[in-house]
Amino acid sequence: MTCPIIKCFKSREPIYSSSSMFIPHILSCFFFSFTLLSSSSSAFVFSGNGTEDIENRSDLFPKILRDEAVGRLYELGKVSDASGYLERTFMSPASMRAINLIQTWMEDAGLRTWVDEMGNVHGRAEGANTAAEALLIGSHMDTVVDAGMFDGALGIISALSALKALHVTGKLGQLRRPVEVIAFSDEEGVRFQTTFLGSGAIAGILPATALKTTDKRGMAMEDVLKENSLEITEESLSKLKYDPASVWGYVEVHIEQGPVLERFGYPLGVVKGIAGQTRLKVTVRGSQGHAGTVPMSMRQDPMAAAAELILTLESLCKNPEEYLSYGGRCGNDSVKSLSSSLVCTVGEISTWPSASNVIPGQVTYTVDIRAMDDTGREAVIYELSRRMYQICDKRSVSCNIERKHDAGAVACDSELSSQLKSAAYSALKRMEGDIQGEVPVLMSGAGHDAMAMSHLTKVGMIFVRCRGGISHSPEEHVMDNDVWTASLAIMSFLETLEL
Amino acid sequence: MTCPIIKCFKSREPIYSSSSMFIPHILSCFFFSFTLLSSSSSAFVFSGNGTEDIENRSDLFPKILRDEAVGRLYELGKVSDASGYLERTFMSPASMRAINLIQTWMEDAGLRTWVDEMGNVHGRAEGANTAAEALLIGSHMDTVVDAGMFDGALGIISALSALKALHVTGKLGQLRRPVEVIAFSDEEGVRFQTTFLGSGAIAGILPATALKTTDKRGMAMEDVLKENSLEITEESLSKLKYDPASVWGYVEVHIEQGPVLERFGYPLGVVKGIAGQTRLKVTVRGSQGHAGTVPMSMRQDPMAAAAELILTLESLCKNPEEYLSYGGRCGNDSVKSLSSSLVCTVGEISTWPSASNVIPGQVTYTVDIRAMDDTGREAVIYELSRRMYQICDKRSVSCNIERKHDAGAVACDSELSSQLKSAAYSALKRMEGDIQGEVPVLMSGAGHDAMAMSHLTKVGMIFVRCRGGISHSPEEHVMDNDVWTASLAIMSFLETLEL
Repeated sequence: MTCPIIKCFKSREPIYSSSSMFIPHILSCFFFSFTLLSSSSSAFVFSGNGTEDIENRSDLFPKILRDEAVGRLYELGKVSDASGYLERTFMSPASMRAINLIQTWMEDAGLRTWVDEMGNVHGRAEGANTAAEALLIGSHMDTVVDAGMFDGALGIISALSALKALHVTGKLGQLRRPVEVIAFSDEEGVRFQTTFLGSGAIAGILPATALKTTDKRGMAMEDVLKENSLEITEESLSKLKYDPASVWGYVEVHIEQGPVLERFGYPLGVVKGIAGQTRLKVTVRGSQGHAGTVPMSMRQDPMAAAAELILTLESLCKNPEEYLSYGGRCGNDSVKSLSSSLVCTVGEISTWPSASNVIPGQVTYTVDIRAMDDTGREAVIYELSRRMYQICDKRSVSCNIERKHDAGAVACDSELSSQLKSAAYSALKRMEGDIQGEVPVLMSGAGHDAMAMSHLTKVGMIFVRCRGGISHSPEEHVMDNDVWTASLAIMSFLETLEL
Repeated sequence: MTCPIIKCFKSREPIYSSSSMFIPHILSCFFFSFTLLSSSSSAFVFSGNGTEDIENRSDLFPKILRDEAVGRLYELGKVSDASGYLERTFMSPASMRAINLIQTWMEDAGLRTWVDEMGNVHGRAEGANTAAEALLIGSHMDTVVDAGMFDGALGIISALSALKALHVTGKLGQLRRPVEVIAFSDEEGVRFQTTFLGSGAIAGILPATALKTTDKRGMAMEDVLKENSLEITEESLSKLKYDPASVWGYVEVHIEQGPVLERFGYPLGVVKGIAGQTRLKVTVRGSQGHAGTVPMSMRQDPMAAAAELILTLESLCKNPEEYLSYGGRCGNDSVKSLSSSLVCTVGEISTWPSASNVIPGQVTYTVDIRAMDDTGREAVIYELSRRMYQICDKRSVSCNIERKHDAGAVACDSELSSQLKSAAYSALKRMEGDIQGEVPVLMSGAGHDAMAMSHLTKVGMIFVRCRGGISHSPEEHVMDNDVWTASLAIMSFLETLEL
């Protein structure tokens, strides 16, 4: 007898082996297990001690890598379409101002710049060998509504600061391959409800049909671009795709948007992979009625049913091993691997007709499911759906589960990640002197432009600690010295490309 | 050791005893127990057989009590502020047209008419003894948004049809007490979010402060009335209250808005009481976060907590005996009595910030709790709150439970109800010839103007069967012959007042 449908789903091989990444065993249990680590003797706190001593060390470029970088983050953080909060969506007036600002900073770093037909801003240093495969470094310049100023911007500005430091020391021409920074025009997907418009175009995964997508005001994407003098066509979109043979790899610095590095007391971490994601829309239909006149025993209440469904989701995602072992027939190891990264969220819910004195006729809610293991995620969705339909049958309500979005997990390149880890370690050591422990290796639960870019080339990411794990909020914050360390890590990485 | 706070709450005495109401034992178990009756030999179907024979019976007034009444329901159902659906709220332009229409129909029934300062329309026949205590008959002319055409209107139109039948036969002057029909200006409370503006003024329970209440556009109630040439002041409001000594009783016909009469196969029922109601607003606050980056074990998710709270509510209200017996220390009988009428509903729910990829920081939902027994309802709220706080503590989220609205249960007058039951029985017999069984006696889970009027005088209500138990919906429907039967029942009741 086999397990249902997906059979005993197999966990992927670990994306990094401990040996190749020099990760101590205790840290190779990745981030969702980190609470186990808090009492471990190998966990350490990056204290930032000795900062005063290093203030004047010119090799650490505090003026460029910290002061100017932080200043630029605050400056860009004020480029908003809204007054009182940060909102900068694809091709908005504020976005056009941001493009100009970033282009100026790129030129200041000694880069050749241009804006492509999807509104991405490029700044390129050809280095010593124009024909060599290029290193791309990027992140996004768009924001959510009521955003923080570090999400996306930190990746662009830290890269430009690192390149500027090389530029002012005359090393930019000594790089053995071209380095190109790209500020992507859309990652958040706020305006057109579809993500990765910028990086998707560069990676060649943005379909031409996307140009016809309309925003809330009914304006098509191609017209929005044209309005800003960007004459996009199906043909020019296809030409935006980079030739994979011309690219060596893609690197992205990003705020963690979670609480793990802060708990570790570590300013930087290296990302081993980006979780796969499925977004479901669940609609439960029952029998609408007057809240006072339908006895409890006669109700087909979709709200009570939805409550049971949501609790089942939580229980399954907290303890997948209890739901997916199929009486021991499916390997415990694979389930354990899943349980360490699985997260499930109901973020939106609504009733119809939404009146306090009416038993709803319909309840709709969203489910966001993420896991590092795609097969495991499918197993969770299968088991969840099976149990949901059982509950709806039992309650005589109808359930409809729509799959609205799927994205497979992305593994970061092990060699590139290893190099980024060394660069991060090097930056920390330059700042702190001797340090204990290893740079943490994390899974990213959030999607990033690196997901799109992985279709084009190998990718690697560095995460930067943020206060309280908070993101997508004006409360989002990265300490000045952490901005400095991140920029220094990218500079250290670029130094390995010097002739 | 005593039970918590409310101690062993006591069930009220049955509002009607079986003997006084001539209710067969099997029917005296009231409506929420009716499913037990479906296989009983005493349950019967009112078939409407013989309708063709009675079409021409002038004593049944088919032209007035059915054809004209139904025609007026459809005519009034088109008097709407919205195009495409019915919406007629307090003092809206459509309401003013409705007032004129109803006044015309009152005059057509031989009544003296006027509109008072709260927009109530009155039509009065003085009968043979102007000084006698008056019988008031009423219901409301306002509607919910996207309403049905029977809710409220049926009570006004059936009364006017009955009075017209007496008028055309010259019997209106022979009534031994004045009869006054009142079309109340507001019962639904849509515009000012507060109910019973019309009947509350007549009953003297509408506070003067209500006149300062503003609608969504910021317009005060007194200004809304003035705009329609109704010069209300605190003094004139207080004068709207009827002198209790001048009133004999209040009668209201209303669609059931529930499924019980249809299941019984009975066109009419008599209401024994109106359930008490509490409305709660529950706010659960947790820790907002990115759906992809916060491990399940670190979440303080108010949505999952709300789901558990809603399931607990459902469980408690389905089986109060399991929660409220306090280990047998509280009487089982009182709990059983509660469980037969208790209904609990979550009609509205929302998350903040309401994005599919964000763990909500806050979830807010409404709870509507109704029961025939006020002490029992308090016991349920106490036990519910206790368990809710326990669950929130366990989940490290904060719960806030606000009591937004409370209304005590209202008992209909037993003698008046007995007379209405006889009138309903008489109408059914006149239509059908011999009938089996008794007119059902129901509890009303919905609030009605009779609740407000019970502060002034004794009240009695007749419920009319509606299709599928549906109300507050354009699908709301009452069969033509049931409109006829309801009008005939009121006529039969009025005939008992003849000299």
